[in-house]
Amino acid sequence: MKTLRDIGENRLLQKILPRLPQRPDTPVGPGDDCAVVRVAASPDDWLFTTDPVIERRHFLAKTPPRLVGRKAIARAVSDIAAMGGEPLWILINLVAPGSTSLARIQHLYDGMTAAARLWHLGILGGDTAEGDTLELHITAIGRVPRGQAVLRSGARARDHLYVTGHLGGAYLPGNRHHLLFEPRIQAGRFLSEQRFATAMMDLSDGLATDLPRLLDASKRGAQIHAAAIPFSSAARKTGDPLRHALCDGEDFELLFTVAPKNRIRFEDEWKRVFPRLPATRIGVILGNPRQRVLRLPDGTTTPLRNGGYQHFLKRKSP
Amino acid sequence: MKTLRDIGENRLLQKILPRLPQRPDTPVGPGDDCAVVRVAASPDDWLFTTDPVIERRHFLAKTPPRLVGRKAIARAVSDIAAMGGEPLWILINLVAPGSTSLARIQHLYDGMTAAARLWHLGILGGDTAEGDTLELHITAIGRVPRGQAVLRSGARARDHLYVTGHLGGAYLPGNRHHLLFEPRIQAGRFLSEQRFATAMMDLSDGLATDLPRLLDASKRGAQIHAAAIPFSSAARKTGDPLRHALCDGEDFELLFTVAPKNRIRFEDEWKRVFPRLPATRIGVILGNPRQRVLRLPDGTTTPLRNGGYQHFLKRKSP
Repeated sequence: MKTLRDIGENRLLQKILPRLPQRPDTPVGPGDDCAVVRVAASPDDWLFTTDPVIERRHFLAKTPPRLVGRKAIARAVSDIAAMGGEPLWILINLVAPGSTSLARIQHLYDGMTAAARLWHLGILGGDTAEGDTLELHITAIGRVPRGQAVLRSGARARDHLYVTGHLGGAYLPGNRHHLLFEPRIQAGRFLSEQRFATAMMDLSDGLATDLPRLLDASKRGAQIHAAAIPFSSAARKTGDPLRHALCDGEDFELLFTVAPKNRIRFEDEWKRVFPRLPATRIGVILGNPRQRVLRLPDGTTTPLRNGGYQHFLKRKSP
Repeated sequence: MKTLRDIGENRLLQKILPRLPQRPDTPVGPGDDCAVVRVAASPDDWLFTTDPVIERRHFLAKTPPRLVGRKAIARAVSDIAAMGGEPLWILINLVAPGSTSLARIQHLYDGMTAAARLWHLGILGGDTAEGDTLELHITAIGRVPRGQAVLRSGARARDHLYVTGHLGGAYLPGNRHHLLFEPRIQAGRFLSEQRFATAMMDLSDGLATDLPRLLDASKRGAQIHAAAIPFSSAARKTGDPLRHALCDGEDFELLFTVAPKNRIRFEDEWKRVFPRLPATRIGVILGNPRQRVLRLPDGTTTPLRNGGYQHFLKRKSP
């Protein structure tokens, strides 16, 4: 009998997603960071996403519950940011054992409430249920001017590939990036409004897992320059920052592509608008979807392998 | 140290809900069946709700997974129906152990897909994550003409109190009502469009738990006539159908109020439009919010006690 562990999340989604029924008012259905819904006569498209945060997968019993709440909201908001959208509202499903202390739950909600205030979100409600494991399931709703959502599928050959911030080691001991990351809301909106990004997604499962998702959606390949990847200080302290940057996940930085004709203007504008947030060019999109290579600092190349995190296939420690 | 088990779901929600930040575009925030969001220049208000379905709480390992999928969608759709809305889209979060068979997951999605087709819903996507327990978290989005959502808070003294269908025993042995119930979409829309319902909600936790929620929201009391309550055939087969009708939950029928001046016209219209679905008058709204009584068949009265299901306080067998 085949189990989820045998096939992993990617193949599971490949089996399930194409069969889900769609309505004609949905320009982008399952498979991108958010779904995009278009309503007659509305100047905006609507963005929908939902994300789980589960004890022992995304946080530990000892993780401060305020930060767990913050993380849960930030993950969903990051999906809206990755479409170039403005996050507006969230819904919360709480699952908890009956033995959970009231104080822990109140701190969880304090963290979610503070995050909602920070990012100007309304909390529309949700539901609570008893279960074996502490979990938050966050649905986020956002908007983007009609037709301006940046999809994973828009990358073209010779587009330049960029990431914001620094990658790797988000949950290495002593690093709380996976709890304290900033969803790139302003950066995502800038890239959409200025029409710089041809394709975009957020990095939740690591560059080595997420880049192939963008390339699959765009039906393109890519060459990445290992020497160009901006490693986080946590990753740089390890013996193998490249592996951490490719495989750790939970960076929640933006991965996006820019057409070659816009490169200079984009880089100038970016530095002006975001002087404290680097956008680093790490490679280039290739026309052949099967050509996916990593150029190492010594000049040799190696196939870019899907080595990041995948649910069901193996365990991740938060 | 106080735990969730000590305070139960109702008191937990009373602590948390008032502190959640709201946006001015949200006429109805947390606490009703759905949140209501109003967007400038839109002829419709938007309805949002999210519901968990968890193994050993809402279904068992032996429950056919197609029916679990159906139930998950139907529960969320029932919340949209309870506002008088039209359900449009859903998002799905799946949590499953890695050891779950692929066949079981595919049957779950088959059930959700069939339900979505039946009720003309688009499935916008969602997320999948590994966890200890099989769970579905369903977010449903719907619409209702601007200002026409029927809230829990609209009941007034002397309004008549009605329920659709039959109550009790939804998950007694041999009864699969909790899996096969019909969300009352058409009935809810009729009650909203014709402006018959002054207040409405769906019965998910049992009349004895849900009616006080409607009364609290409306700041009113009520008198219920036990002899008038329409018992399900499953409840009637037990020695105590009244207890089952009051406390079992998962009926997913509509509980609503109708102003006295509209009673005759409502009852005539209802019979014409829904000849096969009874709407039964079970009592009357009282002005004093502390007056909540159950009139028994022998003519004596007893306080209406909150005796239905509450998460965290005690266990429910599905």
